[in-house]
Amino acid sequence: MEESSKSYEKVPSGIPGFDDLVNGGFHRGTVNTITGASGSGKTVFASQFIYEGIKAGEKGMIIMPSESSEFLKREMYSSFKWDFWKLEDEGKLAMVDVTDPVLRLQKSIETDPTDFLINFRKLVEKKVRDEKPQRILIDDLMAFFTAIESPFVMRSLADDLFGILRSLEVTALITISEAFGMTQIMEYGADSCTILKRERIGNNMVRSIYIMKMRGSRIASSIRVLDISDDGLAVSTLSPYP
Amino acid sequence: MEESSKSYEKVPSGIPGFDDLVNGGFHRGTVNTITGASGSGKTVFASQFIYEGIKAGEKGMIIMPSESSEFLKREMYSSFKWDFWKLEDEGKLAMVDVTDPVLRLQKSIETDPTDFLINFRKLVEKKVRDEKPQRILIDDLMAFFTAIESPFVMRSLADDLFGILRSLEVTALITISEAFGMTQIMEYGADSCTILKRERIGNNMVRSIYIMKMRGSRIASSIRVLDISDDGLAVSTLSPYP
Amino acid sequence: MEESSKSYEKVPSGIPGFDDLVNGGFHRGTVNTITGASGSGKTVFASQFIYEGIKAGEKGMIIMPSESSEFLKREMYSSFKWDFWKLEDEGKLAMVDVTDPVLRLQKSIETDPTDFLINFRKLVEKKVRDEKPQRILIDDLMAFFTAIESPFVMRSLADDLFGILRSLEVTALITISEAFGMTQIMEYGADSCTILKRERIGNNMVRSIYIMKMRGSRIASSIRVLDISDDGLAVSTLSPYP
Amino acid sequence: MEESSKSYEKVPSGIPGFDDLVNGGFHRGTVNTITGASGSGKTVFASQFIYEGIKAGEKGMIIMPSESSEFLKREMYSSFKWDFWKLEDEGKLAMVDVTDPVLRLQKSIETDPTDFLINFRKLVEKKVRDEKPQRILIDDLMAFFTAIESPFVMRSLADDLFGILRSLEVTALITISEAFGMTQIMEYGADSCTILKRERIGNNMVRSIYIMKMRGSRIASSIRVLDISDDGLAVSTLSPYP
Amino acid sequence: MEESSKSYEKVPSGIPGFDDLVNGGFHRGTVNTITGASGSGKTVFASQFIYEGIKAGEKGMIIMPSESSEFLKREMYSSFKWDFWKLEDEGKLAMVDVTDPVLRLQKSIETDPTDFLINFRKLVEKKVRDEKPQRILIDDLMAFFTAIESPFVMRSLADDLFGILRSLEVTALITISEAFGMTQIMEYGADSCTILKRERIGNNMVRSIYIMKMRGSRIASSIRVLDISDDGLAVSTLSPYP
Amino acid sequence: MEESSKSYEKVPSGIPGFDDLVNGGFHRGTVNTITGASGSGKTVFASQFIYEGIKAGEKGMIIMPSESSEFLKREMYSSFKWDFWKLEDEGKLAMVDVTDPVLRLQKSIETDPTDFLINFRKLVEKKVRDEKPQRILIDDLMAFFTAIESPFVMRSLADDLFGILRSLEVTALITISEAFGMTQIMEYGADSCTILKRERIGNNMVRSIYIMKMRGSRIASSIRVLDISDDGLAVSTLSPYP
Repeated sequence: MEESSKSYEKVPSGIPGFDDLVNGGFHRGTVNTITGASGSGKTVFASQFIYEGIKAGEKGMIIMPSESSEFLKREMYSSFKWDFWKLEDEGKLAMVDVTDPVLRLQKSIETDPTDFLINFRKLVEKKVRDEKPQRILIDDLMAFFTAIESPFVMRSLADDLFGILRSLEVTALITISEAFGMTQIMEYGADSCTILKRERIGNNMVRSIYIMKMRGSRIASSIRVLDISDDGLAVSTLSPYP
Repeated sequence: MEESSKSYEKVPSGIPGFDDLVNGGFHRGTVNTITGASGSGKTVFASQFIYEGIKAGEKGMIIMPSESSEFLKREMYSSFKWDFWKLEDEGKLAMVDVTDPVLRLQKSIETDPTDFLINFRKLVEKKVRDEKPQRILIDDLMAFFTAIESPFVMRSLADDLFGILRSLEVTALITISEAFGMTQIMEYGADSCTILKRERIGNNMVRSIYIMKMRGSRIASSIRVLDISDDGLAVSTLSPYP
Repeated sequence: MEESSKSYEKVPSGIPGFDDLVNGGFHRGTVNTITGASGSGKTVFASQFIYEGIKAGEKGMIIMPSESSEFLKREMYSSFKWDFWKLEDEGKLAMVDVTDPVLRLQKSIETDPTDFLINFRKLVEKKVRDEKPQRILIDDLMAFFTAIESPFVMRSLADDLFGILRSLEVTALITISEAFGMTQIMEYGADSCTILKRERIGNNMVRSIYIMKMRGSRIASSIRVLDISDDGLAVSTLSPYP
Repeated sequence: MEESSKSYEKVPSGIPGFDDLVNGGFHRGTVNTITGASGSGKTVFASQFIYEGIKAGEKGMIIMPSESSEFLKREMYSSFKWDFWKLEDEGKLAMVDVTDPVLRLQKSIETDPTDFLINFRKLVEKKVRDEKPQRILIDDLMAFFTAIESPFVMRSLADDLFGILRSLEVTALITISEAFGMTQIMEYGADSCTILKRERIGNNMVRSIYIMKMRGSRIASSIRVLDISDDGLAVSTLSPYP
Repeated sequence: MEESSKSYEKVPSGIPGFDDLVNGGFHRGTVNTITGASGSGKTVFASQFIYEGIKAGEKGMIIMPSESSEFLKREMYSSFKWDFWKLEDEGKLAMVDVTDPVLRLQKSIETDPTDFLINFRKLVEKKVRDEKPQRILIDDLMAFFTAIESPFVMRSLADDLFGILRSLEVTALITISEAFGMTQIMEYGADSCTILKRERIGNNMVRSIYIMKMRGSRIASSIRVLDISDDGLAVSTLSPYP
Repeated sequence: MEESSKSYEKVPSGIPGFDDLVNGGFHRGTVNTITGASGSGKTVFASQFIYEGIKAGEKGMIIMPSESSEFLKREMYSSFKWDFWKLEDEGKLAMVDVTDPVLRLQKSIETDPTDFLINFRKLVEKKVRDEKPQRILIDDLMAFFTAIESPFVMRSLADDLFGILRSLEVTALITISEAFGMTQIMEYGADSCTILKRERIGNNMVRSIYIMKMRGSRIASSIRVLDISDDGLAVSTLSPYP
């Protein structure tokens, strides 16, 4: 076996300060979770990863299983002037959202969730083969899994999906909303897990970030403030706790 | 795509101090939640948004799925002399309450909650098309959802309702009572989430406010005291915690 | 609409110090909850409201859905020399208790709780129309609701009962025992909520009171010690916490 | 109605220091709970109440629904030289225990718990009518209720039993073990509730006592150390917490 | 009744320092629980009680309902050179373990747990009558009860077993693993309860011991460090908490 | 019985600092759990045990019931240059992973989990007999058990598996992920339990280790920092808490 296939290739996230925490970036061909509550910044984080990838020449794909991608585009343009409409027109970004017939299916309460997730897996596979992105974002996987009550079934379906993503050799970010519980089941099978928080410290709500795990990479032990500015998120050198 | 449709238009809330926290106000055409326990001030907050909208020339609509709107009118008049009867007579405000046959339906224990919510969605759509309000308040959505036990169904129904509201291009405030749990499921799909508290600090019950998230807008990180006076609520410059 | 019907008329509680906390008293024609654990003083509080009402010329009615009213009479006489037997004889007080056939029904485990509560609502309506009280106490509503497991059904039944009480234009106090959970569901539909506690502070068990909400009225933010003496309860000017 | 029947007659417990906490003792003809975990002293407390009653000329009865009374007799003799065998021989104490056919029934897993409790109520009634005790102890009621899962049924059955005891005009103490949950349901219908604890304070396990409620009586607000010596329990003037 | 049969005879545990905590030892003919988490030392404690009993001339019996006794023998020899093989050969110790057909039954998932426990009770009775031990250890009863979900059934079966043990006039120690919940149900019917802990204090895991209850005996109120050395466990005079 | 078979033979882990905590290493022929959350280092710890065993001349086997072993190999090579491909080629290491038909079975949601686990037990037995490893790692047993809800069945199956491993005379490490609950049930039957944590201390995420139990061995009471470097894990002499 060649040396190169034994180690991981690094994919810089492009998020200022983040790559230092994980020894250079995410690993190519891996599945990486970004977990946090509403307002912690996980959608911005993951969108910035896609945006910076495009700037670095890597095609992006964003899959939104339960919302229209128009909301994401508008949010990113309004906040940071990232023009996802333009990038889509230029063929640098592919969007897959709830307007796709497969994803629209989920809207029907009568659909069996397991069937739906099997269809979703096929959809992801097909879209990735058609569009050939190098970076992919699924936002939000957890919301999508609400209908599944068995941890066993949830883990099996996640294992399946993560396996497909790895075999397609994309670098995938998956946001996981804490609103729906069982985040640990999802994180268990991922190659890396990043935790975002927005919590009360004194009289302020402070955003922070730490790396829970990254397979095959030394990770920083520090918890850092996550700053937000007109240019997006940046990992500060400051610590959140007094 | 035109610049204007890529960004959000700001809708000032009219609540003193609040718009500073959210960079100018709510976004037109979005769904915004106000979450808090009984006594935290969420109904006053949302009613003030409607009242200030009318003063600024925007027609209001208040939907009360499980109570008579007479109680709300009396409460606001008694507390702040906001005369919702008069505004209704002048055609500046439309009230939809439990006296409507669709909403009265909910009172029947035999009604299937999913059917009911589907009817409710149609009712909202029809009333908004008929009355053409620019601001809308639903008070309280959560109490209304008590009958639904599946997070999956709850989220699907909320997604549907939020989608309708966005497509109708109204600026919607939705109060969410913590008494009924699962507030996070509801907040997940909203464009912004404001959190109100009334909690014991020393020997006093202190009201406070912070913004949990607002899509497409920088938000203040500070937690602020929420003052109440003869003129309604106002966000103080003070912090609640010592 | 006339000014008078737009605002609330105040009903002084007669409990020393309490009316200052709520800007003059309860509102006529409203439903008000008094929540607390065993030993917090909620039955004394609510009985004192009835007793002081009679002294002020307002006829009282006490409904005890699951106990004989003899116990209450004896407790109040023994503690404070309030002679409810005499007031009953004088026609100033009406007692409805478990000796009533409708309420006795509840004792039967076979009775469907929903049927029972519907009968209870009718009983209350009939008794109020017959006796024409101005103040009413239901002690304890929550214990009474033990048999209902669905929050949805519980809220619907409470809404119904509260609606009847409002339409009868009595000022109602309803005690809610924390022993039975789900107090928030009950408090949600009430016009005001008062919270009583008896908790350990250092080496003493201290009683305290605060107002959680009162629709249409400014309420005090302070938490106060609740004193008990030969004359009944009184809200102290002191604070419970060091 | 005569003055005497409007108030409560006091029954001194005979436990040193306790009667000061409750303004003279328990009330004749009432049902009083003693709640605590294993090792908190509730069986000793209640047995001492019976023993001191006999010394004061009041016949006692001890009902042990799930154990042989030999264990209790031996425990009390071994610890304090209280000779319950002798008192039984002298006709001053009646014991009803699991050797009674009605109580033995409970041992059978096939018995319907509701049937069993109805039989138990009848047994108590018959034994009290036959033996004519003035003080009665049921040790432990809660252990006995393990088989009942519905709070509604549990409360109904407790209400029934408490009603019988009151009508029989005995002064009853009922021990409630925290090991079985739902103690609040049981305490709700009692005339007084005493709480015993044995908890870690620094490097010691300290016993303490406070009165949670007593209908018709002013109660002390202090929490006190509960001492144990060769003469039984005594309420100290000391406080448990530093 | 003779004086001797009214009191308890003391059985010194032989564990250094322990008998001081319980006024001389366990009581002959009683059932005593030793509760603790994995690693707290309960198996060592109970084995030492058996070993010291043999040294003092009392025959021992160890019942291991779900493991081979070889593991216990090896653990004790390896740790403390207590040679249980030799004691067994000399007829001073009897082992009953999972190799017994009755206990092997438990391994079958199809066996009804209640049937199994009834067989187990008979097995214990027969073995005790055959071997005539004076001290008995069941290690671990709780693990054994995992299959029973009803607290009512669990208590009934434990009551049965404890009753048999008492009637056989052995002094029994029963270890209870906290890993399986509901330890309080088991402790409720025991004559004494000893609690072992191993918990983090600063940067160390410290073992401690206290007596929760002992019927008929004054017990020490102090919590003590439990030392482990080449000679087994010993109760220290030190306290675990700073 | 010979002296040697009465005691345990020590198997040095090879992890710097660890063997000092457990008096020389694990015991040959025992089952040992390593419990921790995602990111605590349990997979690295257990892989290092296998790697160091091979260096010391003991053949290793790694069983991965729900993932491809390629991920583990790449992670270890990328992090520490441990070349598990090479060791496998040299016949010093055997890998059993999800590509094995028996383990692939688990992927099917239709498979009865009990049947599957019985097949798994047989697979382990066969592979160990074929490959004759001296050290074995199962990573991760808990994830594998997600489908089993009954603690009774889980314990029975774990007992079976642990019994097989002991009879095969391998030294087994089993990682247990906290993400799936019920870790205590699994730890109960193990010969030793090691606990790994990664928790926030101040502004850092610190890894630590302590030994919860080891049958037949004196264990250190200290909690230690677990360092990670290019050479793998090492137990520090430092303590994690300030």
